[in-house]
Amino acid sequence: MLLRAGLEALTEKGFSATGIEEILSRVGVPKGSFYHYFDSKEVYGLDLIERYGTFFAHKLDRHLRNTALSPLDRLRAFVTDATEGMARFDFRRGCLIGNLGQEMGALPESFRTRLKGTFEDWQARFSACLDEAQKAGQLLPDADTAQLAALFWIGWEGAVLRAKLERSAQPLDTFAGFFFASLPMR
Amino acid sequence: MLLRAGLEALTEKGFSATGIEEILSRVGVPKGSFYHYFDSKEVYGLDLIERYGTFFAHKLDRHLRNTALSPLDRLRAFVTDATEGMARFDFRRGCLIGNLGQEMGALPESFRTRLKGTFEDWQARFSACLDEAQKAGQLLPDADTAQLAALFWIGWEGAVLRAKLERSAQPLDTFAGFFFASLPMR
Repeated sequence: MLLRAGLEALTEKGFSATGIEEILSRVGVPKGSFYHYFDSKEVYGLDLIERYGTFFAHKLDRHLRNTALSPLDRLRAFVTDATEGMARFDFRRGCLIGNLGQEMGALPESFRTRLKGTFEDWQARFSACLDEAQKAGQLLPDADTAQLAALFWIGWEGAVLRAKLERSAQPLDTFAGFFFASLPMR
Repeated sequence: MLLRAGLEALTEKGFSATGIEEILSRVGVPKGSFYHYFDSKEVYGLDLIERYGTFFAHKLDRHLRNTALSPLDRLRAFVTDATEGMARFDFRRGCLIGNLGQEMGALPESFRTRLKGTFEDWQARFSACLDEAQKAGQLLPDADTAQLAALFWIGWEGAVLRAKLERSAQPLDTFAGFFFASLPMR
């Protein structure tokens, strides 16, 4: 319950703006219980990063391993799903990893490696699917799939940020449209 | 002094993680003086957005109106300057507008219009330079310059976020490289 409430609060507002008291009152749990499970807010934050990273990796896999679709259509399906996910919460919730990355200047240094590692993990999954697209002849043989995956996550996080600000799917559509249109296709 | 200290703190850590007390002790000013100039932290934040927006618009104009360069080279010069600006502070300071956009869930609603307006202003300046590139024959006549300018700012803010996280220019180089390579050139 504490982790679920934390994910909700942190994807909306980030780490610094979220107090432990607020989490406790959301779930109706006394302070002592929190410190029974987590030694500190830092430990709690690290747990949230891990949990969110894993949750999102599953979401990615669900799409990117769906062999019923062509590799590029799997990537498109993920983008559609992620866009719908933001719309479902009226574009109020963004990406935990992006939020915390932006806040890094105010966060414990221990967060940096975990946040970077999470992006690298998502990129690797994305890159593997681009490799499949290449093998299937959807992408040109000399396309740099690792670089394209890196580019996707850089731009996508920017798009999520703007979607939250604009309360609209348009930044997501703009970036994804450009990304797919610019792929070095056969 | 209060505004300058605020810009430093907010580009590093964002709004929520920055306390007024911290700003006051940075500049050695008593609390009463702060409230002499600003009615509240919200008013102070709105002033900071305006100041940063104007500062950055000047930076953009300095490059984008530099007729000694071709229009596309002016955009490249801006990107180089912005990258060097981040490197100068060891990639600790990001973009105030991006930081606050990311934090929007925790900020007063009055910030939203100002932040959106700032992005629109920067986009318009960028778009005008792309129009010049089109007139000069550097871009194809059917290139959608407004859309390309929107795409640039969406992705660039994502790149700034990642550059802060990675403490490296690489995300900026990756995004800018892809952006310029993907422009519909003649």
